[in-house]
Amino acid sequence: MIDPELLLNFIKERRSIRAFQDKQIPEKELEMILEAGRWAPSASNRQPWEFIVIKNRDILKKLARVTGYGWFIGEASFAVAIVGKPRTSQNYYIIDTSLVSMNMMLMAWSLGIGTCWIGSINKERAKEILDLGRDDYLLTVLPFGYIQGAIPDITGRYPLNKIVKEI
Amino acid sequence: MIDPELLLNFIKERRSIRAFQDKQIPEKELEMILEAGRWAPSASNRQPWEFIVIKNRDILKKLARVTGYGWFIGEASFAVAIVGKPRTSQNYYIIDTSLVSMNMMLMAWSLGIGTCWIGSINKERAKEILDLGRDDYLLTVLPFGYIQGAIPDITGRYPLNKIVKEI
Repeated sequence: MIDPELLLNFIKERRSIRAFQDKQIPEKELEMILEAGRWAPSASNRQPWEFIVIKNRDILKKLARVTGYGWFIGEASFAVAIVGKPRTSQNYYIIDTSLVSMNMMLMAWSLGIGTCWIGSINKERAKEILDLGRDDYLLTVLPFGYIQGAIPDITGRYPLNKIVKEI
Repeated sequence: MIDPELLLNFIKERRSIRAFQDKQIPEKELEMILEAGRWAPSASNRQPWEFIVIKNRDILKKLARVTGYGWFIGEASFAVAIVGKPRTSQNYYIIDTSLVSMNMMLMAWSLGIGTCWIGSINKERAKEILDLGRDDYLLTVLPFGYIQGAIPDITGRYPLNKIVKEI
C-alpha cells in the first residue's frame, strides 16, 4: 500500500515534461510503464487497447512533424502510441485508453521519466506513419525521456470551491 | 517521490469494489479524493470539469436506479459525479475527465476506500437527477465507500506480448 499523503503529493507534483535527456531508458523501465497501462481498469474488463512502442528515431521524428507542438517527440528515448480498439457497440475505448495514459504518466513520473500528453496530432497522418488500421483509434502518442533541465513550474488549478458542488 | 516498484504493485492491486461498509467517510478523505482529481492534467490546462459530491441518500438511491448494474451507488458513503464542460471547439473533455477519474480511483484505493467505474448509466436521467445543464457531459458517477468483505479476486489482463507492438 501507499501512504495517502505521499500519493496525493506525488499526483500534485507531477508535471508535463517537454525536454528530454539524450539518454536511453532501460528496457525494465519501459516495461514498468507498459505494465502500469496494462493494469488500468476498462469497461467490462475488455481492455480495448494496443500499445505501440516507437524507438525508431526516424519514425519519432516523422511523428513529431505531424503534431502541433509535439516537436519533442523527436527527442524522446521512446514513445508509446496508445491505440483504442473499437470492439463492441458499447464503445468505451476513449475513456479506457485515457485511464491507461494516466497510469503510464504516473508510473513514468515515479521513475524520474518525463512525458507530456500530446493532443494536437494530425491523427490521420500519424495513423499512416504507425500503419494503423482504419478502425483503430489513436488516443495519443506519449513521448518518454529522462527529464532535462529544471522541472517546470507548477501549472495552477482552479480551487476546489470553484469546481465542486455538493448535493 | 514514490518508489516505482511500490507504485506498480499498487496499480496492479487496485480492484473495482462493489460492496461498501455502512460507515461514513470523513471529510478529510473526501477532500483528498477531490484533490487527486483536481490535479489531473488536461488539454491546455483548461480543467473542463466539475465534481458533484452526492451525499444525499435519496439522490444516491435515485441514481442507483438509473444504472444497469450500479445498485451499490445507493449504499456508498458518497458518490462523485464527474462532469465535463465542453468549453472550446477542441473538446478534450472526455479524455480530461477520464484522467480525473483514474486519479480519484487511485487516491481512494490508498485510503482503503473502494470504488467502481460505472459505465451503464442512463445519462439523460442521471443528468436530470443531478440537475445538470444540457451541454454538460456526465462522464460517470463514482461511488465511494470503505471496502466491505474480501477484496475481489484479480481480474486478468492480456499479457504484454498480446497488446504491445514495437516499431
